[in-house]
Amino acid sequence: MAGMTVSGMATAAGDAEAGKAKAAVCAACHGKNGIAQIPGYPNLAGQNEAYLVSALKAYKNKQRSGGQAPVMQGQAAGLSDEDIANLAAYYASLPADGGE
Amino acid sequence: MAGMTVSGMATAAGDAEAGKAKAAVCAACHGKNGIAQIPGYPNLAGQNEAYLVSALKAYKNKQRSGGQAPVMQGQAAGLSDEDIANLAAYYASLPADGGE
Repeated sequence: MAGMTVSGMATAAGDAEAGKAKAAVCAACHGKNGIAQIPGYPNLAGQNEAYLVSALKAYKNKQRSGGQAPVMQGQAAGLSDEDIANLAAYYASLPADGGE
Repeated sequence: MAGMTVSGMATAAGDAEAGKAKAAVCAACHGKNGIAQIPGYPNLAGQNEAYLVSALKAYKNKQRSGGQAPVMQGQAAGLSDEDIANLAAYYASLPADGGE
């Protein structure tokens, strides 16, 4: 069910469980608990859900280049809007400090 | 003093204290403690320093568009490499869960 945020950006409330399954491939760079093991990659744990949606869409739409963006463009290219919403819900649900 | 990371990306080790002073303007969107108050903006607290450097440089070099990127392009345009290193060091030093 799409909701509207204060700033008017539509967010599709994702399914964190479905996102967890989808995130298996992301763990290689972003860590099992959403804390990246590689310094140049972002931690995703506890990140704002709406931001994660907009960032993934920016990679998917090739609106981000520079740094590691080409890697993420490839990862995001095959994601549906539902995948993106679910991944965002999953990572937003994780403790920001990487705790269990 | 510039250092090299495992992935070969040069990072200038920033000065977190100088970054704290520079971050006053960032708090409006990213929160006093690096936890964004606006859902579409990213939390920065405890984020990987090298990632923050590459993201800020991508905004400065207009390599990011989409979402709130235009706002960040304006913010990053006036930052020197030293400012970027200091801001990255500051936000990376903050507790990821927004604690004191």
